[in-house]
Amino acid sequence: MWQLYQFPLCPFSRKVRLLLGEKGIGYELVRESPWDRRDEFMDMNPAGETPVMVDASRPGAPLIDSMAICEYFEETVDKAATINGTAANRAEIRRLVSWFDTHFYRDVTGPLLHERVVKRLAHRAAPDAKGLREAMKAAVSHLDYTDYLLDHRNWLGGATLSLADLAAAAQISVADYLGGIDWKGHDQTARWYRGFKSRPSFRPLLSERMEMIGPPAHYDNVDF
Amino acid sequence: MWQLYQFPLCPFSRKVRLLLGEKGIGYELVRESPWDRRDEFMDMNPAGETPVMVDASRPGAPLIDSMAICEYFEETVDKAATINGTAANRAEIRRLVSWFDTHFYRDVTGPLLHERVVKRLAHRAAPDAKGLREAMKAAVSHLDYTDYLLDHRNWLGGATLSLADLAAAAQISVADYLGGIDWKGHDQTARWYRGFKSRPSFRPLLSERMEMIGPPAHYDNVDF
Repeated sequence: MWQLYQFPLCPFSRKVRLLLGEKGIGYELVRESPWDRRDEFMDMNPAGETPVMVDASRPGAPLIDSMAICEYFEETVDKAATINGTAANRAEIRRLVSWFDTHFYRDVTGPLLHERVVKRLAHRAAPDAKGLREAMKAAVSHLDYTDYLLDHRNWLGGATLSLADLAAAAQISVADYLGGIDWKGHDQTARWYRGFKSRPSFRPLLSERMEMIGPPAHYDNVDF
Repeated sequence: MWQLYQFPLCPFSRKVRLLLGEKGIGYELVRESPWDRRDEFMDMNPAGETPVMVDASRPGAPLIDSMAICEYFEETVDKAATINGTAANRAEIRRLVSWFDTHFYRDVTGPLLHERVVKRLAHRAAPDAKGLREAMKAAVSHLDYTDYLLDHRNWLGGATLSLADLAAAAQISVADYLGGIDWKGHDQTARWYRGFKSRPSFRPLLSERMEMIGPPAHYDNVDF
């Protein structure tokens, strides 16, 4: 059985969990708070980041880095391919995964996690209002871009559900939990996200809570 | 013919160029300074980053994001596979590519480029000595890690040359150009890098210069 080292609001672990859910791969959760830099975890992954996946029944090193993990399960499990189509389609899906993992995370999810989670749990400090405001402002531009993509396509990466959608839903759901998303004026993205919230792969994530930090009322409501 | 939008010290464009060189794929360079945020370039890639690849003879969107570009050429050109071996081997190669693209870049190459290139060319400002010192200190830890890997393996990603080596050489070469690498005490990595400098895919990169900013004397010397 695979074990997944993660914490409930890790957007990269959420992307992996959505993929595992879509593919029907079983796993158990191991709670890891990367900001504690626990020795055994640092030995497993020198980058000190979640997600990490281990299967005691398989020889070899743990799986590390969310995109490397997703590519691994794309290569080894045929069911529910999420990097699909022509080589050009696949390049577009990977471009968007990188967009959400790098840019959305840098501008929105990363600052929100730092201000509202890491500062509170690791340093017992209050968030900085300016940092929160800037992240929320960046979220508006990012949802303008997803609105634009969804004006032209059924799903973010093209005609079918892909890893681009999973990466986006993972980041957006963490930002939404932390009160960083203003849904007003983002009808296309809200419609896409409502559909996503009903998927069996997504329901377990929405029901989890981070200690001491609660989500807004609309967070797990499918008809928000 | 493929066109590659880049500037001489973009480490992500260097990774792609090393891959194209190993695979024998022809391309022409288009100079782009992403810090200028040129309108036509922002329209092509909303992330505003190099590398971007375009082939006027092929329909469809440009190729964007260095890892998406590398995966594209891995999928479409069999020659000189650089993500090879079992699924577990491939996961390890992708983990290391992400390590260099994300961590080495964040700690070393990114700060050096910001202090020594972007500040100078875009803002006519002097570098901050503290920022340079921290990047050089981080480079020492990173080369300790590559030394450790090369104590256990012939190449960074395993038994054969892989995209992990190309990603590492791309980042290290830019850091070396900018005076950020102290080679003392890093014999394993220095030996590996010397071998790399002799490869036909690497020679053209080493002979290029960035305007107004020169490399140290040892930079393009194979026997440094």
